[in-house]
Amino acid sequence: MLEDKIKKVIRDVHDFPKKGIVFKDITPILSKPELVHEIIEKLKDQVAHLKIDAIACIESRGFWFGTILAYEMSLPIIPIRKKGKLPHKTVSVEYDLEYGSATIEAHDDAIGKGVNILIHDDLLATGGTASAAADLIIQSGGIVAGFSFLVDLTFLKGKERLRSYSPNMISLIEY
Amino acid sequence: MLEDKIKKVIRDVHDFPKKGIVFKDITPILSKPELVHEIIEKLKDQVAHLKIDAIACIESRGFWFGTILAYEMSLPIIPIRKKGKLPHKTVSVEYDLEYGSATIEAHDDAIGKGVNILIHDDLLATGGTASAAADLIIQSGGIVAGFSFLVDLTFLKGKERLRSYSPNMISLIEY
Repeated sequence: MLEDKIKKVIRDVHDFPKKGIVFKDITPILSKPELVHEIIEKLKDQVAHLKIDAIACIESRGFWFGTILAYEMSLPIIPIRKKGKLPHKTVSVEYDLEYGSATIEAHDDAIGKGVNILIHDDLLATGGTASAAADLIIQSGGIVAGFSFLVDLTFLKGKERLRSYSPNMISLIEY
Repeated sequence: MLEDKIKKVIRDVHDFPKKGIVFKDITPILSKPELVHEIIEKLKDQVAHLKIDAIACIESRGFWFGTILAYEMSLPIIPIRKKGKLPHKTVSVEYDLEYGSATIEAHDDAIGKGVNILIHDDLLATGGTASAAADLIIQSGGIVAGFSFLVDLTFLKGKERLRSYSPNMISLIEY
């Protein structure tokens, strides 16, 4: 099964980004082109029933599979980046982290009114970043068509947090 | 011509990231799936004669077209990231910026010995980051197969700096 193949390749890195955290490192997947192709096929299948006009890809790890998925589906890519990285006029949302806060941005002309947008990131943890991305889309007049992740750390209950934005929450593998 | 189409879409942003700089914003390309497809076809054509075993994509803008190009060519993706972003054991190269310095990293098992690697980034300016990426590859026993950029700011003479690594320096459009 694809799920098992992916789990075999994902690498646990202890104490990253800080002590006590076991980080799921998906970069070994990138060195296996056949696996990347299988994953893209699966991600595509998972969202085939949704109405999607564009894919919002969250910096930076969300750029890897998000841009390829958009390419494969011939859809526009909306880059969602950390504060100060996008050069033109932006819309932004600030959100709370465990300690402090973070801000994500999109170009203000990147999210069209009434456009159905799939939000993609590599990994769903508490859902803080993904819900901020959803707020950004709604604030700009877009519609959250759903969420797509490679990995869902289910014990952090991210999907519960995202449910109010869209019932369409898809992940390839769960821990 | 594709070059003209791209130039029409790229947006000049004045005083980004700091006063006096005219930044070439390629994000409007991402909203045009057909143009993205044409660009990937062209990038692929440009490197078709080279022996390439993997594509090193430079964070973050190099991830956009670099990962798609690798996907389209069924090649491994080697992410080159800023210091502290890659979770596992890394190799790194520090290089000078106009003010201060920066460090880029790759996972130490991502670059195989004798592997022919194409370095991709969105834009070539002075070539500082690209040459640091080349140093990283050589230091790890890899071979620099060439460089691929969307944009070359020719007045900054980046290609002169990169020539010693590989004669294969390809860009889609020049300013």
